[in-house]
Order: sequence, then C-alpha cells, then structure tokens
Amino acid sequence: MSGNTFGKLFTVTTFGESHGVALGAIVDGCPPGLELSETDLQKELDRRRPGSSRHTTQRREPDQVRILSGVFEGVTTGTPIGLLIENTDQRSKDYGKIKDQFRPAHADYTYHHKYGVRDYRGGGRSSARETAMRVAAGAIAKKFLASHGIQVRGYMSQLGPIEIELRDWEAVDSNPFFCPDPQRLPELEEYMDQLRRDQDSVGAKITVMAEGLPPGLGEPIFDRLDADLAHGLMSINAVKGVEIGDGFGVVTQRGSEHRDEMTPEGFQSNHAGGVLGGISSGQTLIAHLALKPTSSITIPGRSIDVDGNSVEVVTKGRHDPCVGIRATPIAEAMMALTLMDHYLRHRAQNAEVEVATPRLR
Amino acid sequence: MSGNTFGKLFTVTTFGESHGVALGAIVDGCPPGLELSETDLQKELDRRRPGSSRHTTQRREPDQVRILSGVFEGVTTGTPIGLLIENTDQRSKDYGKIKDQFRPAHADYTYHHKYGVRDYRGGGRSSARETAMRVAAGAIAKKFLASHGIQVRGYMSQLGPIEIELRDWEAVDSNPFFCPDPQRLPELEEYMDQLRRDQDSVGAKITVMAEGLPPGLGEPIFDRLDADLAHGLMSINAVKGVEIGDGFGVVTQRGSEHRDEMTPEGFQSNHAGGVLGGISSGQTLIAHLALKPTSSITIPGRSIDVDGNSVEVVTKGRHDPCVGIRATPIAEAMMALTLMDHYLRHRAQNAEVEVATPRLR
Amino acid sequence: MSGNTFGKLFTVTTFGESHGVALGAIVDGCPPGLELSETDLQKELDRRRPGSSRHTTQRREPDQVRILSGVFEGVTTGTPIGLLIENTDQRSKDYGKIKDQFRPAHADYTYHHKYGVRDYRGGGRSSARETAMRVAAGAIAKKFLASHGIQVRGYMSQLGPIEIELRDWEAVDSNPFFCPDPQRLPELEEYMDQLRRDQDSVGAKITVMAEGLPPGLGEPIFDRLDADLAHGLMSINAVKGVEIGDGFGVVTQRGSEHRDEMTPEGFQSNHAGGVLGGISSGQTLIAHLALKPTSSITIPGRSIDVDGNSVEVVTKGRHDPCVGIRATPIAEAMMALTLMDHYLRHRAQNAEVEVATPRLR
Amino acid sequence: MSGNTFGKLFTVTTFGESHGVALGAIVDGCPPGLELSETDLQKELDRRRPGSSRHTTQRREPDQVRILSGVFEGVTTGTPIGLLIENTDQRSKDYGKIKDQFRPAHADYTYHHKYGVRDYRGGGRSSARETAMRVAAGAIAKKFLASHGIQVRGYMSQLGPIEIELRDWEAVDSNPFFCPDPQRLPELEEYMDQLRRDQDSVGAKITVMAEGLPPGLGEPIFDRLDADLAHGLMSINAVKGVEIGDGFGVVTQRGSEHRDEMTPEGFQSNHAGGVLGGISSGQTLIAHLALKPTSSITIPGRSIDVDGNSVEVVTKGRHDPCVGIRATPIAEAMMALTLMDHYLRHRAQNAEVEVATPRLR
Repeated sequence: MSGNTFGKLFTVTTFGESHGVALGAIVDGCPPGLELSETDLQKELDRRRPGSSRHTTQRREPDQVRILSGVFEGVTTGTPIGLLIENTDQRSKDYGKIKDQFRPAHADYTYHHKYGVRDYRGGGRSSARETAMRVAAGAIAKKFLASHGIQVRGYMSQLGPIEIELRDWEAVDSNPFFCPDPQRLPELEEYMDQLRRDQDSVGAKITVMAEGLPPGLGEPIFDRLDADLAHGLMSINAVKGVEIGDGFGVVTQRGSEHRDEMTPEGFQSNHAGGVLGGISSGQTLIAHLALKPTSSITIPGRSIDVDGNSVEVVTKGRHDPCVGIRATPIAEAMMALTLMDHYLRHRAQNAEVEVATPRLR
Repeated sequence: MSGNTFGKLFTVTTFGESHGVALGAIVDGCPPGLELSETDLQKELDRRRPGSSRHTTQRREPDQVRILSGVFEGVTTGTPIGLLIENTDQRSKDYGKIKDQFRPAHADYTYHHKYGVRDYRGGGRSSARETAMRVAAGAIAKKFLASHGIQVRGYMSQLGPIEIELRDWEAVDSNPFFCPDPQRLPELEEYMDQLRRDQDSVGAKITVMAEGLPPGLGEPIFDRLDADLAHGLMSINAVKGVEIGDGFGVVTQRGSEHRDEMTPEGFQSNHAGGVLGGISSGQTLIAHLALKPTSSITIPGRSIDVDGNSVEVVTKGRHDPCVGIRATPIAEAMMALTLMDHYLRHRAQNAEVEVATPRLR
Repeated sequence: MSGNTFGKLFTVTTFGESHGVALGAIVDGCPPGLELSETDLQKELDRRRPGSSRHTTQRREPDQVRILSGVFEGVTTGTPIGLLIENTDQRSKDYGKIKDQFRPAHADYTYHHKYGVRDYRGGGRSSARETAMRVAAGAIAKKFLASHGIQVRGYMSQLGPIEIELRDWEAVDSNPFFCPDPQRLPELEEYMDQLRRDQDSVGAKITVMAEGLPPGLGEPIFDRLDADLAHGLMSINAVKGVEIGDGFGVVTQRGSEHRDEMTPEGFQSNHAGGVLGGISSGQTLIAHLALKPTSSITIPGRSIDVDGNSVEVVTKGRHDPCVGIRATPIAEAMMALTLMDHYLRHRAQNAEVEVATPRLR
Repeated sequence: MSGNTFGKLFTVTTFGESHGVALGAIVDGCPPGLELSETDLQKELDRRRPGSSRHTTQRREPDQVRILSGVFEGVTTGTPIGLLIENTDQRSKDYGKIKDQFRPAHADYTYHHKYGVRDYRGGGRSSARETAMRVAAGAIAKKFLASHGIQVRGYMSQLGPIEIELRDWEAVDSNPFFCPDPQRLPELEEYMDQLRRDQDSVGAKITVMAEGLPPGLGEPIFDRLDADLAHGLMSINAVKGVEIGDGFGVVTQRGSEHRDEMTPEGFQSNHAGGVLGGISSGQTLIAHLALKPTSSITIPGRSIDVDGNSVEVVTKGRHDPCVGIRATPIAEAMMALTLMDHYLRHRAQNAEVEVATPRLR
C-alpha cells in the first residue's frame, strides 16, 4: 500500500486487518522525556471501544493495547514506540458469499480491482477497526500537546437530521453519543431506536477543536495546517467532507462579514477557525467533518460478483448503524497527530524566531 | 518553510513571492516521452490570468512561462522540469503602513509570528499569485492524464447566493466566471457590479471532476485518494471546505439512500463521488470546494500593528472581489496533480495485477 | 527518532530495544500476490542468528518471527505487513554501572547527549539486535526480486588481516563465517581462537552482489542506486566504509583502465560495479563494506561517567568478537531493500519505456 | 526522475541539463533571519568554477547565480529560496555520433535504457555541471552552520598515486588542486602535465571535515548521520567509495586499538570520525571519498550504438582530466547540506533535552 504512514516528523505507521492476528503501529519522532504508560492510551481506546452501548456494534473487543518499545522507566526515550492490539473476537463464520461479492458502497470492489486479492473477512484492511491504532497513537500526541498547553477535544454536532449545539463540554464523555447537550439525549436515543427498527443507518457530523495553540503552526504553501488537517480528517473511514471554521458557510458571506477583526483585546470573531494563510493564528482551531451512513445494512441491495453477474447483497453481522457515533475520538486523534507533527516542524525551522508583538486569542 | 512540495512520486516544488523577481517550480517524476511545449502550459495559465475581465484584479501580468529543463526535442526526458515566470508588473509604491500593520483575515499576522520577518509587498509568499505555478505544473499532469484517457475539468457552482447548475461544459471557458450555465451570466454580472459598488467581496463554490479514471487509484489508509485530494484542494488560498461526492449532504442521508448500487450495467448512482475506501471506483471523481471572500476590501477594518496598537486598515490596490472567480483552473490543477501522483504510485505497486472482473462506470 | 524508516515506495519501519519486550517492523508497499510465509523469513533470520557457533555471541534467541498482517491465504495482499519477534533471552542482571557510564566507542555517550534518557540495557536501541528486523524485511524483498530474476547474495571477503577470495558460492552458507573459500576455514578458526584468548575483537569486510538486474534502476541525481545503497549499507551498525565496484581502488586508476568497454558480446569488465550515472547497467551490482571491531571487549578502557568523572570500563556479557561474522545476511538485506524500492520507483515513472537496444551483461 | 531532492527538513531540489537553458534549485526549509546575499553563493561557486587553471576543463562559464525568492531586505524569510544560473557557454556543434553511441563508462547507456530518450548534449542531466547547484545550495547551509559555530571544509588527499597530508588549511584555497601541502604542488603540476600528454585521466581522493558540531546530530537507525552523509557523498558524480573516520582501515584493526577512549580532558583519539551509533559525538566529523577517473578521454574505446552494433568512441570536447580536482567544494556542500538537515531534525525532536554531562571534544 505504501500509504500507511501519517506525518512527516512525528510519524505514525499502522498495520492490521479486521480479522487478522493483530493491529499495530509504530510512532516515530516522539520527543524523549514524556511520561507515558499504557493507561494513557487505554483511556482513549476505551472511549472508542465498540459494544459500550446498544447503539454501536456488538462486536466485543477489549482492545487492550501494549507498548512494546520506546518507553523506559515510565518515560519516552526518543526511540520508536511500538504498539500492539491483539484481535480476540474474530468469530469464525462462513464467508462464502462475501468472498466473491461486492457489498455496495464498500471498499470490496475497489480493493479487488486495485490488489487482485483481498482479505474479505470483516472488510480486512478497509474496516474501521483500523482506527483503533489512530486513537492509540493520537493519545501520545494528545499527551505531549497537553503538556504544552494545547487541548484537543471534540463532539458530535449532528446526527442525521438532529443538529446539536455545544452547551456543556463536561457532558460529552458521559453519554455514548459524545453529545455536548444533555437535553438532546432522549431525542437521540429515540432516533437511533427507530433507525434500528428500520434496519437502516444514518450519517453524522463531528466537530473537533484545539485550544491553546501558539501562532505559527503550519507550513505554507502545500503543508498548510488546514490542508494537512483536511488530509488527516478525510482519511478517516466514511468521511466525505471537511470544513475549517465557517467552512461552506463562507460561500455566501461578504468579506466585511467574514474577516475576523483584531483589537488589542483580541480577535473579535473566529470565522476563520483559527487558521490564516495556512498557519495557526492562536485562536481556537475548529474543524467539522461529515460521515456517511454505514453501508452495512440488512436491507437488500443490488450488486455484482467477481464475474460481473448481478447479485443481491444483505450485509449481516455486527455493525454500527451510525459510524459517526464512535468517530469523535478518532477525529480528535487525527487533529492531535496533525498538530503534533506541525509543532515539531515549526520549531525545527523557527526555533530562533522571537517576536515582541503580543499574541491575541 | 519546507512545505513547498506537493506529491510523493510526481512532485511539484514551488517558490516565489508576489512582488519578487520571479515565480518558479520544479516538476519531478514526469514520465519520459510525453510531448510537451510551453504552449501547453500557457494555455492553462491564460485561463487563470488576472485582468481578463472587469470582475477580476486589474493587475496585468502576462504570466509568460518558460520551460528551462526536462524537455528535449519536444518531449519530456524523465529529468526534472524547471519552470519560470518572471514578475513584470510590480508597481513600486509606498508600503509604509502595510509593513507594520496586519490586514484582518490576511496571513500578515501569522507570517509575522511564525517567521519574524516577511516580505510584505503584495502579500509576499502568501499571495494567490503563487497559484500560477500550480496551474503551470498542473498542465503537465493534465496532459499526461489526457493521454491516458483521463479528463479533469471544473466550473463555478455557486457565487455568493447564486447557485449554478452544470448545464453545458462547453460554456465554461467562454465566460469569465467559468459558469456552466450561459443563462445565469446576466445575473452574475449584475451581482458582481453591485458588489463592486458596495466595495465588498464575496465567497464562491467550485466543482471539479475527473472522468475516465481506472479503478484502483489511492493508497489506503492515510494516502487515500480523497484524503490527498482534500489536502491539495484545501491548500489553495482562501479554501475553507472540501467535499467528495455528496459531501456534507451525507449527514442526513440514510444508508439505503446513500449507497451506490451496482448492476452489470454499471453503478446506479454516484453519491460517493467516485471513491470507495479511499480508492477510485472508476466512476466520475467529484469534489466541491468553498472559497472565502477576499479580505482585501476598502471598507475600513479594525486591526493592530506590530507593537500591538489598535489601527484602522483600508486595503487598497488591485484585488479580486471574488477570488473564487479565477479558482477553477487552480482547483483543476490540484486535482490533476493528485491524480498524477496516484497514477504513478498505483502502477509502482500493482503493475502485475490482472483482474477479470468487468469495470463499471 | 523519526529516522526509523527505510525506503520511499517499499518502506520498512522498525522498532525495538535489545532487552525490551519485542522487536517489530512494518513493511509497506509490497506488491500483492507474492507467495509469502513465515518460513521464508525464518530461513534468513536463522542465518543471522547468534549462538550458532563458538565464534559469535552466546546469547541464545530463537528469533521466531510472526507475520501479523498483510498476508492472506499464503499471498501478500498489498496491505502493510506487520512483523514481530518477541525477546525471550533477556537475562536480568545488575546494570548499576552501565547506567551511568559510557562505554568507549559505543553509542552510550551520544544517545545520552541526544535524548537525555536511554534504555541502557544491552545497548537499547543502538544494539545490533535491531538488525534482525532488517533481515526479516529483507527476506520479503529478496523473495520478490528472486521472482523477477534478481538474486542478492554476499560473503565475508576479509576477516582482520585474512583476505578471502570468492571461490565457491555454495560454500558460503555451510560455515559460520560466510566464507566463500573452504580452504581458508582452518585459518579463520585459528585466528578467532587466538582473538578470544586475547580478549580482543577485530574488523571485517563483507561483499554483496546482485545478479540479474535490468538496466534502469536508480533515480538521479540524489537517489542514485549507488547513493541509496551506500545509505543502506552505512546504516548498519559498525559499518565505517562503503565501496561500489572498485571503490577506493579507482583513486590510482587511469581512465583508460577504469572504463568498462562494451561490445555486442557484453561489457568487457566491471570496474564500475554495475552502476553508471547512478543507474544500474545490467551488470552485477557489487558493493563492499568495512565493519569496525566490536567495542565490547573485556580489556579495560578509559572513559567518563554522566558527571564527567574518569572511570575504567570493562564490558562483560555475551558479545561477538567480530561483528562482521554475522553481517553478511544483514548486508544482503539492505541491498535487497534498496533494490526493491528502486524496482518499484523505476516502473512508476518508466513503465511505458520501450527500447530496442539489446541489453548487455 | 523524482530523485532530485536532497534532505528531509532542509530540502534542495535541483533541475537543469549541461547544455540546456539554465540550472536551478529550490532550497526549502531555511530558517528565517539569516543574512544572505548572492555574493555568499558566488564565492563558493567561484571555487568550483571550471577554466580557472590549465588542469581543468576549458569550458568557461561565469556561473553567475541569482537569488529569485526567499530573501528580503538582505535576510532569509523562511520561504523557499529559488536559485538560477543561466547557461551561457553552450557551443553549438555536431552531436551526430554522440546521439546514437554510448561512451564507455558514461551514463549514456543507462539513461537510454531507463528513459528511452535523453538529452545527449554534453551529457545532459548526467553531466557534473549539475553540481553547481549543489554548491550554491550548500553555501546557504554553510553560512547557517557557521553562524552556529560549525565549520565545514575539505581538501584533496590523494591525486592518482600521490598521497597528500593535511599540513596547512590556509593553503587549500590558494592552489587549483585544493592541496593542503604547498610543497607537493610541483609534483602535482608535473603529474597532471604528463597525464595530459598521455591523453588520459586519473582518480582522486577527497577529505571533508566538520568542526564545532554539537553531540546529538543524526537519527538512528536508518537516517544515521554517517548513513545520510554516505548517501550525499556517493550521490556526487564519479564517487565510488565513502569512508567515515578510519574507513576501510578498521578491517584490520583490533577493538582495543580502534575504540576512542574518553577522559575528562576529551576523546583520546578519533578513529570513529566523529560519529558513534549514527550520532555526532562532538569530535571532528571526518569523511573520505574516492572519485573515479573521468571517462571522457581521447584514447579510442570500444562500445556499441543504439542498435547494438560495435563502434569505436573517441570523446572530444573540454573535459577535466581529473574530476577530483574540482570536487572539494562539492563534497563540502554535500556535507553541509547533510548537517544542516540533521541540525533542524535534531532540534525538532529534542529541543527540550538538557544534559548536565560535560561535552568532550
């Protein structure tokens, strides 16, 4: 594949199939001296773990991560950090049909044409199970960033037709939806129950933010902070759109309305979402992402088999009716990895820069 | 900066400031044997050129590109292609205020904090003038792709509040808006005239497509075709959002509605926008991008200077009231560069793959 | 560290410390459809394994490698291949002194200054134990290359003062020295026995070759085949010199003597070692490397501790008196990885090139 | 080609053929605030310039370099630095035979097989003329390093059979050979005169050093300082061997002899050449390189043409009888570029490391 590495200085390379032996990652470039334990990673993995509510897949994986290298006596040593999660819940079953058929809107068809062979069990490499490693690696980035005053967090901002406002950061981790408005929970529960009765799935929107950023992160002109962030977020399974700040809202805005004016007290608005010219401004970095409805539904769909014949596909198994529900920790991870990489890149080139101009928020 | 290279196998590295001596690029990795002349590049540059209608900046640059290497006797040799455009219309003027002030919503403030010094003349490196080199390099990619049956093209799909439908590809290059619906032209003209009277600016939406793609382009899991495309498009000045296929529309879609069913006759719809699992499906690749209104307007805005003092900024000069108007060739260039890179990457790994399964469109 | 990846299209990223939990690697970019099993890798690992003769370290590691992903039903799938070797023979002992002292000619001092912290057990990341993963990954490259008619192999060409000529490829794998001249074995045995009595160590020279190469591999001007090969070989622990073809012998050669003339029957000599202008010529690729004597000897040496105080260091433990003895499989691996990467890079750019000119050997 | 970039954080990408329009380079990643002018670059280019003595090619190129971007008001801005040298002395001549014949020991044959087409005029891209851009880019690295207390310099240590010792750094730049021992100059002159009478060429050895390095540069395990340096030096035209420190001399050394002992007063020797475990130790970094005799001689040689027919080749034109004579500035440039890249990489990851242990020299 040769596309399994993310980052340039702080690099994450992953491997692993849904129903293979194990998932793993190598995190290279982590500064030495960072306190790190498996608990730091497990905490984030548990947020993403399936089977924690009736609204997500019932596949039960403990997703127990082990650190195999790069940490000695409780701190990182600057050498590569090997991570491993063994797959334990690989139900053996009859894959006869899946093997030769392409589920509509899945990667089956494209993997088949690209590689000629594919591990069809549970989607193989194309399964969202792969994102566990992003979350584990992202936890390392999050911890480093936090130790430098930068906080990355996210929430679900829309589930199907239900738009959700950010009312309470504290609420996010206390419900299975990463919903930041506790009053909307009954509505969400009800919607999901109906969806399950319909045997259908639905899309979602996630919002992620980083606060406490210094100005200066991002490398114009191609490796802008927003461009690299778009890369990272769009690489998450099922994501079909990425916005920075006001996103597609800017299409109808006037310049006099969009521009974020500055006074000695700070920025007067944040339409830009914390990035100007591809470089962080010091304001809160804001991104939104759109996730499509999972295609693994039991409503029959038309497709073809490897010989090109017409077939009807019914996807059984344990699937998330809304992949967006578990996507918040993954989006946070990708934002954290992007920022971590740019944090290191920035100081490589600009360590000597000193500016007397006050920083605005 | 060290972020001035795009691509992994087909790489484009650029340099140049708005009011510097010249803009240039090195295109590395172009296959040998491709017929190529300066005319091929100039054709695309002329589409992007400013000053061609009253709705764009009146800066008049011939933007004459020269090929300095890598082409011999009319064909590429496989060696790096050096490109150069000399800046000719650099009006000398008094930059006294711009030097020490930060224009709101510009990169002035972030460049200042990142680098300590900056070429403030015309925005320096952060000027959209840099995109001329993307268009020149993209023309090479377009030509190679075209010789392999792949066509990349785009159009303006929204200007401020005016949504535009794709009615006639032929019309796109015959009006200054890249508008694919000739009937909407009077409305667009009128809107722009009013905007200029308001001394304001507005956002826009661009749509780009690639037809004739083989299935298989894209490298999961991080260098997916859609992720790399999002990177490329988001790296264009003023872009704040990127969508693949239905984009943010997927948030409210049901799985039964979103999935593109397949029959032996082909795909039955294209909600996915031509990408499944990060790999091209062979359907038309579709992306949309949102461009913010230019911040260079003459309506006074509040800002600060390098000492942190409050100032009022009025941006004079020759600016596009809607940067989206000239963005279509740039978006096409970034899509072409992304596809070119993945075309080469794909055949590096998968040259031996042979699949008997019929390809669908 | 962020320097733990080798290759650009066929990439190998490794992790692991000498006395940590495990060693691992991710091989990304392997073409799909290659038959591959753990046996293929184990065969090469067993050639490098310590403890197989009295002339190498008595550390006994089975070095049992597991393939964790990327192979399905006996063939590679094009997805990343995860490899793991668990460390089993980590004798617990008192590291009190090693922790705070720098062994002369080891990486102790430089790791300490670079990272501030280090895993001092058995040399940590700087131990040659890390090369096991290179050999495992190299086995994949070797197998792919072999299936395309390219054979990579090597031998010991000098041990201390004893120069060895290539007389019999068959002999190489039948003695612990990778010596290609069976008649020299008694001399080598005797030399090593005396060395052990002296409690000292000695350097060695290794020669590696690749036969069956097509012309065209290598990417001028910086990623020449010889330059990338020098990178790979010099990255092996203890290597202090790399030669291509006649190497340092060219200094005293005349042009009329050095140039390899061509006739329709083929090249008339191979002073160049199979590379012209950084590109493979189709002749046998030949490289030599010099390995320094291991610094882990029991003869006391002067050094300092972390506070800068003078100390006397005696390195105990299980060490190779000549690291060169086990270096042949490692050198072969690095040559194979280099060739593999360039094989893929070449066809990415030049797949369409057809040349009627006959290929010479 | 896609191999025309050197470095990871401080990157140099070059273009240009021997007899094309121009040579150029883009230097990306230079820290802002460095005072830089064309004079800084020209000074180094003039050291490499041909035609400055009767012992080098009589091609007369002023090699006037222009800085096109990235420098504003006398200092670097952190944006990419565009460099250009226009070719002025491209004698038009009849290339009839060269076009279809392969000069022995040149890149003609390999370029032909790799790319199918080639710019045969003066060797095209494979000409050593390309190294002018390395020297120009290297001058930027040298200046940055010098401002951080690091000095890179080199000399010719052997010309054919004449070995030269380092006796006087001052002498190096006052003779056309970069010879550090003024007493050997008559011998060198005499040897070269005889060589010219013989119409032959000869090899040479160059030594380069860096003093004032901090400990810590280099990224194990693949991007070791010595490995990346070997890559850089081996990528220079005609180089066939690279040594670090004692190089191939280590083959016959004992461990007790090779190891560089440390006392509070400093290292007691420097067999390692300033690198331990792939990381700079703070001692002088020392490398040697072997350059083959140029193959462009007028003594007739056997070869083939593009149809595989036997031909006799006589290389006329203006060629260096010893390419090693002008190689010292090029080798310095490659060492400077390597160090510059690692200087930035080191501080990216290890900016927070503080070590109380005294640094030794």
